Amino acid sequence: MSNNIIDGKAIAETINNETAMSVADLARNHSLQPGLAVVLIGENPASQVYVKMKVKKCHELGIYSEKHVLADDASMAEVLELIEKLNNDPAINGILVQSPPPPQIDEETVVAAIRPDKDVDCFHAENVGKMLIGKSDGFFPCTPHGVMVLLERSGVDPCGKHAVIIGRSNIVGKPMMALLVQKAAGANATVTVVHSRTPDIASYTRQGDILIAAIGKPEFVTADMVKDGATVIDVGINRIDDPSAKRGYRLVGDVKFDEVSKKAALITPVPGGVGPMTIAMLLHNAVKACKMQNGRAF
Amino acid sequence: MSNNIIDGKAIAETINNETAMSVADLARNHSLQPGLAVVLIGENPASQVYVKMKVKKCHELGIYSEKHVLADDASMAEVLELIEKLNNDPAINGILVQSPPPPQIDEETVVAAIRPDKDVDCFHAENVGKMLIGKSDGFFPCTPHGVMVLLERSGVDPCGKHAVIIGRSNIVGKPMMALLVQKAAGANATVTVVHSRTPDIASYTRQGDILIAAIGKPEFVTADMVKDGATVIDVGINRIDDPSAKRGYRLVGDVKFDEVSKKAALITPVPGGVGPMTIAMLLHNAVKACKMQNGRAF
Repeated sequence: MSNNIIDGKAIAETINNETAMSVADLARNHSLQPGLAVVLIGENPASQVYVKMKVKKCHELGIYSEKHVLADDASMAEVLELIEKLNNDPAINGILVQSPPPPQIDEETVVAAIRPDKDVDCFHAENVGKMLIGKSDGFFPCTPHGVMVLLERSGVDPCGKHAVIIGRSNIVGKPMMALLVQKAAGANATVTVVHSRTPDIASYTRQGDILIAAIGKPEFVTADMVKDGATVIDVGINRIDDPSAKRGYRLVGDVKFDEVSKKAALITPVPGGVGPMTIAMLLHNAVKACKMQNGRAF
Repeated sequence: MSNNIIDGKAIAETINNETAMSVADLARNHSLQPGLAVVLIGENPASQVYVKMKVKKCHELGIYSEKHVLADDASMAEVLELIEKLNNDPAINGILVQSPPPPQIDEETVVAAIRPDKDVDCFHAENVGKMLIGKSDGFFPCTPHGVMVLLERSGVDPCGKHAVIIGRSNIVGKPMMALLVQKAAGANATVTVVHSRTPDIASYTRQGDILIAAIGKPEFVTADMVKDGATVIDVGINRIDDPSAKRGYRLVGDVKFDEVSKKAALITPVPGGVGPMTIAMLLHNAVKACKMQNGRAF
């Protein structure tokens, strides 16, 4: 790999090893095993793949996991009944409902029903609020947290740097802004958020010492939009048609990698950048949930 | 008043009139009266003044209010017992605990004990999270919400404008960022937050079409830091010694008003700018709380 590439796969592997060590320590010294319940409603093929990956990773790291599959036409009552059961199950420390659910299921209501201390995705309003306030007894959402860890493990301290975030989604842009602006080690960035209503986005992105692309538009960020020597984090995963590829498509990020990588001091690839971090931080959260629920330091 | 001054007192009066009309409507058509409980612990003179102002304003607008005064040496148990009582009191729709409490009282624990749907200050993590996510069934915190209303009532639409916020407190800076960046009418700003760790703050503030100063440093923002034609909102209230003043001090904001007002298209004065909006939005929230708790649209 070119030496300005942030190897998300390798960093995720390190995090996973640390998680496995925590799991082993909990087992050996406290007779505890973190448990994660993954709820899949319906048969969305992408969701099936994600759920399988999460369950497999749990197994590798020694985390107990349960996969709960509900029918595509499951009712809200069925989903809420399952959540309630998992909320009260002491073997389960973390609960996640794979997104997106089928249309009859109101995702917000389901997320709000998850016990906040088992909400390892950090989608519950109480955990989102704790994150913004700067409290450490909730969770950080997996993808933005993964970006923070990628920066830290790559030796990029955001303190005093200008971080420019493209996109203001609840999953990435907004929590990214909240995490980076905190008065805390590994944060302390000056933060700018640009989005669909921003005129002349490039005039902002060119100021970014750290540029985080999370807008969901294939290869949106071109070299002329990037400051020389910036750290570029690409959160996008987009399929674009490619007849020459085996499956007829290839995955690209929100950043035009070929040209931007020549200008950036550091850059994440797609795939192999932010992606592997998301699951790593999920499992990190499952261990944290287990510790918190058992009154252990975290 | 000079014609580029945003008259916060007048706008707050308009909001208060709207609140009084809502209160009258609730009484006439639904036999409901919003009720606010204000909890004061100890004898901080500034807190006593604020509490008195809030109770007086409730009375003027037709809102039922209760003032609960606990001794300076009140225990956490006493405070939490009172909160629990107010949580369960159907005559009380909103609860606020005047800040700062004496040192033996952990403010975070007290705030977390307030029922979220009675948390009219929007300090509870669940409401902070709802605000960041963009849900409308919580509350907005009073001072940042007051700033949003000042902008709206002054004809300043933040959409597509660059809003630069100086300060990242939980009371002002962070919620201000959350409110301005939302995908929502009256928001949609490109947002930058600068703070104590930002090098060359002026290089950012000079880009602000809307500049919001909430850093708590007297007259920190000077004319050279402001873009020509900007809207300048001064959230600061600082006492500075002034032997010529009757009380020996005068109040100034975070903005050097005399020079900045010559450059800004619109500017809030101190006092008489953001200050009066804070109580107005609190009472607005008390009415919203009453409506929500009684299943009425809001």
